[in-house]
Amino acid sequence: MPKISQKGERLPLSPIRKLTPYADDAKRRGVKVYHLNIGQPDLPTPQKALDALHNLDIRTISYTHSQGILPLRQGIVRYYSRSGIHLSEDDVIVTTGGSEALLFTLMALMDPGDEVIMMEPTYANYFTFAHIAGVNARTVTSYIEDGFALPPVEEIEKLINTRTKAIMICNPNNPTGYVYSREELMAIRKIALKHDLFVIGDEVYREFLYTDDPFVSLLHLPDLDQHAIVIDSMSKRYSECGIRVGMVVSRNQEVMKTLLKFAQSRLCPPHLGQVVAEASIDGTEQYSRECYEEYIARRDFFIEGLNRIPGVVSPMPKGAFYTVASLPVEDTEDFCRWMLSDFVYNDGTVPGGETVMMAPASGFYNMPAFGKNQVRLAYVLCKEDLARALTVLEAGLAEYQRHH
Amino acid sequence: MPKISQKGERLPLSPIRKLTPYADDAKRRGVKVYHLNIGQPDLPTPQKALDALHNLDIRTISYTHSQGILPLRQGIVRYYSRSGIHLSEDDVIVTTGGSEALLFTLMALMDPGDEVIMMEPTYANYFTFAHIAGVNARTVTSYIEDGFALPPVEEIEKLINTRTKAIMICNPNNPTGYVYSREELMAIRKIALKHDLFVIGDEVYREFLYTDDPFVSLLHLPDLDQHAIVIDSMSKRYSECGIRVGMVVSRNQEVMKTLLKFAQSRLCPPHLGQVVAEASIDGTEQYSRECYEEYIARRDFFIEGLNRIPGVVSPMPKGAFYTVASLPVEDTEDFCRWMLSDFVYNDGTVPGGETVMMAPASGFYNMPAFGKNQVRLAYVLCKEDLARALTVLEAGLAEYQRHH
Repeated sequence: MPKISQKGERLPLSPIRKLTPYADDAKRRGVKVYHLNIGQPDLPTPQKALDALHNLDIRTISYTHSQGILPLRQGIVRYYSRSGIHLSEDDVIVTTGGSEALLFTLMALMDPGDEVIMMEPTYANYFTFAHIAGVNARTVTSYIEDGFALPPVEEIEKLINTRTKAIMICNPNNPTGYVYSREELMAIRKIALKHDLFVIGDEVYREFLYTDDPFVSLLHLPDLDQHAIVIDSMSKRYSECGIRVGMVVSRNQEVMKTLLKFAQSRLCPPHLGQVVAEASIDGTEQYSRECYEEYIARRDFFIEGLNRIPGVVSPMPKGAFYTVASLPVEDTEDFCRWMLSDFVYNDGTVPGGETVMMAPASGFYNMPAFGKNQVRLAYVLCKEDLARALTVLEAGLAEYQRHH
Repeated sequence: MPKISQKGERLPLSPIRKLTPYADDAKRRGVKVYHLNIGQPDLPTPQKALDALHNLDIRTISYTHSQGILPLRQGIVRYYSRSGIHLSEDDVIVTTGGSEALLFTLMALMDPGDEVIMMEPTYANYFTFAHIAGVNARTVTSYIEDGFALPPVEEIEKLINTRTKAIMICNPNNPTGYVYSREELMAIRKIALKHDLFVIGDEVYREFLYTDDPFVSLLHLPDLDQHAIVIDSMSKRYSECGIRVGMVVSRNQEVMKTLLKFAQSRLCPPHLGQVVAEASIDGTEQYSRECYEEYIARRDFFIEGLNRIPGVVSPMPKGAFYTVASLPVEDTEDFCRWMLSDFVYNDGTVPGGETVMMAPASGFYNMPAFGKNQVRLAYVLCKEDLARALTVLEAGLAEYQRHH
């Protein structure tokens, strides 16, 4: 029997999805599972966007331009100009979700053996995409005690060598909810310019910002046009993750020309998703305001509730809709699996009982030991469900501690 | 300014799309361009599939399972069973088009430096995906004089070494329209078993078969379950290229498990495309029959017309909707560009005049010299447009020959 590749064999399992079989089993047993593991918002997609689909007057669902349909790219240019970022349509390549944007960007900038520096904990699939691209992900650790603020930039600088090609940040941060200040971004910019490195900024959560300061994008920073590559996505902003429409935004034309070759190889991004995305950009201000208010209420409610559970500690996230919390257990990998396979909370409210699915945080670190007692939690459920999830988590922790 | 990757720099331009800027220029000048360069069928998507979209009752366009939604995978299992191929739903992973299926398969099976053997001319993006995966594409040439039949298998065997991991075929063939016979496939099977190699079969054109013999899939061959990986797509079959829904089909569970890790990294294939795909599979027999009759009529008309142009030679394709034809010019790359930038046919029918866009065949060969006087032509336009395209091509050839 022929052997698969080592690349395939060693590809890490996604920490967000690796417990899915246990959750599926629990559901088969009739247990209601609250998904705190994945950033799948329960909020509706804008009606305007759904209407665009329902009224779509099309005879053949054809390929589109590899770069994305022009009206969508024009819409994206308008969207950015609202926050003072002025682009041309050729500074945008539409991708199949932020995922493809990340993978193509890593491969367009880096060869196998090159290095990219990230802050950990970080979005786990960054490690996966780096692995697929053959790129070494080097990490600087940020700590829960500091609220996951940017570590001293000297720590970043220590990792720079001749193979270093880029610094990659997620801002607002998945999984921590931290938002980098202008000062922190300027510090990263300084190192990037000094060592002539690309800065890749995953800004897909830019609209989910709970401080009073306006969001600072890499594209706002001075003299960084040739170095800044922004990854963006429609998924979370308009609660339409399934359309698979993301983008790369950069003013570096050599990078964009190269990315377009990658884009041409897969022909085009999803046509229908682009229709929905285009309809989502304008005339949805009211929708966005309502979503924002809902998320900020959820955050306040959920983080407060978390910190009230004995032994649980979570910083207050400044953005996105995740938090990394530490739990009073030794190994969250074991605890999260146990919650799905062994534990059921049943106070008679739900016939089959309830449990909670969480993402063990070790997969968000290069050094899994750092995240061993942490979990990533997404607060993308309605308040009632978040309240139940907190009750279930508290009961689960108590029972787990009795047995371990 | 930081440098992009060598991988990105050396990524070949798609021969199907590299002349797009010239075509765009021609269109701006008011010239009507007949697209023989790309397999974008002009036939309608099944009404049933469009209705599924128009009537979609959904509140949030969410992520789906990474493997694809279950009803779609069940539909695919039913589809295959109609041709005597019996699968389970776990033998199918839904991908973002056949393109993603190809890229993930190459990376799941092969490490950088490994080799895959293909017959050339072949689908040009195979070279691109191999380049992205760091895999060496070795080719055995098939010749227009033989109608692009399978070269002697000894030629394949000569290329096999310790780094060889797979043989990859496109059947029915893009770009040649050739369809491998059972005997040819059994010869490939024999080598694959002897040397323990994977066989990757891109069978996206399986419904476009103009011989009286039933289609033979890799999945029909005996004792090949652990070696056969089939790439398939909904795009051409139901004239819905823009939905970006393809799949990998294999009974090798280790391969499928590994592919699922790649699939999880990009979260999911397009939700809306999967809805359209699911609705396309059953109850569209009448639609498929009509498409089939249309394509066979186009083939007969177009290939006959091509061979009537002085100096043009095209074999009669047995499947798909492409042909590779040789033209009476030295360099089709130059000729195809000239047709877009310098030539306009104007007999008063179309105010701005007309021209034809073709894909120079050199990009379909590892050794571009082989395809230097050949083009790939797709007959995906209505008969009236094909007739005009033939007239324009004949006139263009005559004028080009006068000037060169």
